[in-house]
Amino acid sequence: MKVKPVFVTSNENKLREAAEILGLDLDRADVDVPEIQSLDFGEVAAAKALAVREALGSPPYPVIVDDSGLAVVAWGGFPGPLTKWLMKSVGNAGLLRMLDAEDDRSACAICTVAVVDERGAIQIFRGVVEGEISCEPRGKGGFGFDPIFVPEGKTRTYAEMGSAKSADSHRARALRAARDALGGR
Amino acid sequence: MKVKPVFVTSNENKLREAAEILGLDLDRADVDVPEIQSLDFGEVAAAKALAVREALGSPPYPVIVDDSGLAVVAWGGFPGPLTKWLMKSVGNAGLLRMLDAEDDRSACAICTVAVVDERGAIQIFRGVVEGEISCEPRGKGGFGFDPIFVPEGKTRTYAEMGSAKSADSHRARALRAARDALGGR
Repeated sequence: MKVKPVFVTSNENKLREAAEILGLDLDRADVDVPEIQSLDFGEVAAAKALAVREALGSPPYPVIVDDSGLAVVAWGGFPGPLTKWLMKSVGNAGLLRMLDAEDDRSACAICTVAVVDERGAIQIFRGVVEGEISCEPRGKGGFGFDPIFVPEGKTRTYAEMGSAKSADSHRARALRAARDALGGR
Repeated sequence: MKVKPVFVTSNENKLREAAEILGLDLDRADVDVPEIQSLDFGEVAAAKALAVREALGSPPYPVIVDDSGLAVVAWGGFPGPLTKWLMKSVGNAGLLRMLDAEDDRSACAICTVAVVDERGAIQIFRGVVEGEISCEPRGKGGFGFDPIFVPEGKTRTYAEMGSAKSADSHRARALRAARDALGGR
């Protein structure tokens, strides 16, 4: 019996994108486990993958999770894996106000993919896009910090880039890093 | 056999302060479990208490944990239970820079005490001190955000107040709220 790896997301589009980049047939699991507090993306993703695997009853197929965030250089990498809570609290407009006093607006968009295999062994893959925080939100596409993140060498924000974003996003880079390990085409 | 409740801390002074306010003999447990990501203090403390109880093998005595943070009003309550990560990343000086653009400097110091009894039932107690964020760090005492938090009606920061802080801090208020429930004197 051939079993498909499970990708953890509530979002069909994310599943499709992951399947495409990984070159694998994936099943989707919509499992919501609490994430742990940490500034280390790998630690957060690994704990999440293990918690999901446990919630699924240690199934005989790999479990794949991803975790993304924004590491602001002037803030020593904060908010990192805690980005979604900053977004929930103040949104992009609030983040821009918080960054007002800083000259250095550089930041990295980071994604970590954690794969836990059927024996419980974990592998972590990381995708990083350097860039900077724009002066105001721009663009209607995307979600989260997409309207305020401009990848290095570009002039448009993630939210203005449309499908050109996903082609080489932090998430795409992390998934590509995982591709070989997962044996996709 | 009379068994003492266990208070979870790596800090002997915190244990002594808790025992005094609760009016109970306490044992100390130095158990380090990951905290969950959330902006809800009660949720974080409850999950921590249960995780510690599990780590201790579900002992026949109550387990008590506390969790503190700073809820900045202009930031919709952020960083809340995530305060320690903001502190680790940017410190008090960095937090002040982030708050630079805001006129409203009001904030609450919040402590939650979670008690999980020998049957696994949880109670949550909360202590809140309203106040505001000072314009620069002041005072050598205390730790964390103590040098930048001025309780309402006071002029000194927590860090400048010395023992006058602990008499009526957010932590003291949460512990006093817990006292009756725990049957201390």
